Amino acid sequence: MSDPDFPQIDIYPIGIIRTPFKEKFGIPRQSGLVESVKAKIIIQSPYDDPIMYDGLSEFSHIWLTFHFNDLPVNVWKKKVRPPRLGGNQKKGVFATRSPYRPNQLGLSVVSLLSIDTTKGVVLEVSGADLLDQTPILDIKPYLPYVDSLEHAKAGFANDAPEKKYLVEFSKQAEIDLIKIADAAEFKLLVTELLSLDPRPAFHNDDLREYHMRLEDWDVTWVIAEDKAHVLKISRFADTH
Amino acid sequence: MSDPDFPQIDIYPIGIIRTPFKEKFGIPRQSGLVESVKAKIIIQSPYDDPIMYDGLSEFSHIWLTFHFNDLPVNVWKKKVRPPRLGGNQKKGVFATRSPYRPNQLGLSVVSLLSIDTTKGVVLEVSGADLLDQTPILDIKPYLPYVDSLEHAKAGFANDAPEKKYLVEFSKQAEIDLIKIADAAEFKLLVTELLSLDPRPAFHNDDLREYHMRLEDWDVTWVIAEDKAHVLKISRFADTH
Repeated sequence: MSDPDFPQIDIYPIGIIRTPFKEKFGIPRQSGLVESVKAKIIIQSPYDDPIMYDGLSEFSHIWLTFHFNDLPVNVWKKKVRPPRLGGNQKKGVFATRSPYRPNQLGLSVVSLLSIDTTKGVVLEVSGADLLDQTPILDIKPYLPYVDSLEHAKAGFANDAPEKKYLVEFSKQAEIDLIKIADAAEFKLLVTELLSLDPRPAFHNDDLREYHMRLEDWDVTWVIAEDKAHVLKISRFADTH
Repeated sequence: MSDPDFPQIDIYPIGIIRTPFKEKFGIPRQSGLVESVKAKIIIQSPYDDPIMYDGLSEFSHIWLTFHFNDLPVNVWKKKVRPPRLGGNQKKGVFATRSPYRPNQLGLSVVSLLSIDTTKGVVLEVSGADLLDQTPILDIKPYLPYVDSLEHAKAGFANDAPEKKYLVEFSKQAEIDLIKIADAAEFKLLVTELLSLDPRPAFHNDDLREYHMRLEDWDVTWVIAEDKAHVLKISRFADTH
């Protein structure tokens, strides 16, 4: 891969993001779809000088450039199956936002909630679609006069995924919620995530139990009669 | 900079962009401001298989992640002076899109005009704000339902820069235009670029001659009576 005309570029993460998503299953397929996802970007030295973020709080949204580091290094595909095409059609990888791309760079826009500079720099954001511990390579302000192109055409990805399901919690799940520190927030998060139906497109077998790990919790649900039913919520360590 | 928790990431350009901008002076300060800027992204092997771009032509706009490679490697600043603040106020580098940022990553959205696969892959785009020969690290489709946030707040950078000047061409400049292959397109490009006033904010001395290099041409202009006057257009090699 070494080529004098195209020299390798060395990139160093400026920090990592902490999100509720301990595994890929359940992560919304784009940023901004689930605003109840709260996340923190922990900036690392030497990028944790608060003056480097001076003025950023004037912006409601920020871009995150990140590295899909859960994949093996340099693994990429020429064609991928976008989830929104039902998983049975392939498109060129550069026509998608798939992680299986050369350089494994990701791009997400998130809401900027606060900048905590009491110890280093921690940015609190919402709407992230990143796996926990993903390295963050850059942060940029969102500029609506440049970045907002309402009338852009997006072919096979033109519309937002619809909220497919109503979400109901069983009596057991309601009891389980009591154990969780911020139960109301957690319930909202589960509700918003499941309403989007995180199952792979080819999974439509009702009554199969699905599991999603969020924070330290294992959420069990089934799809039945066009609703998502949360059966139980157990501490992750208890079940694995 | 080596840290086991934050390992270095090796990035390889997927191609380079060819733009009219042979030097930084004159480049619009964001993408999309000057649609008459035409550019070509020349994809390099092994990323030049047309199937990797299958479906991309359904999108009207694409994101380019690129490397500000005209700066020395690893040069960055904690604070910068955003041009839109008149050059006399500093902001944290992460509150701006300045190139003087850790990792020197750039992000621009451009219109996708065509994908030429007759020999390798060449993407023709418009609205770019990149220096000629900038390495392109990633291409992603623009998804309006995710990326378009019309009501995002952007503090000190909320509004698009205004078109400041009418642009007039001298008799000499009109004669000079005849030498240029696509004179009408070139004239439109110069007009749009100068209307935005590419001078640094602290330069407001009327009647000073300014030069901008576009393609192989050196454009000379002055600001007088609230207009930009193009005095002449000479072949770059003639004057340097």
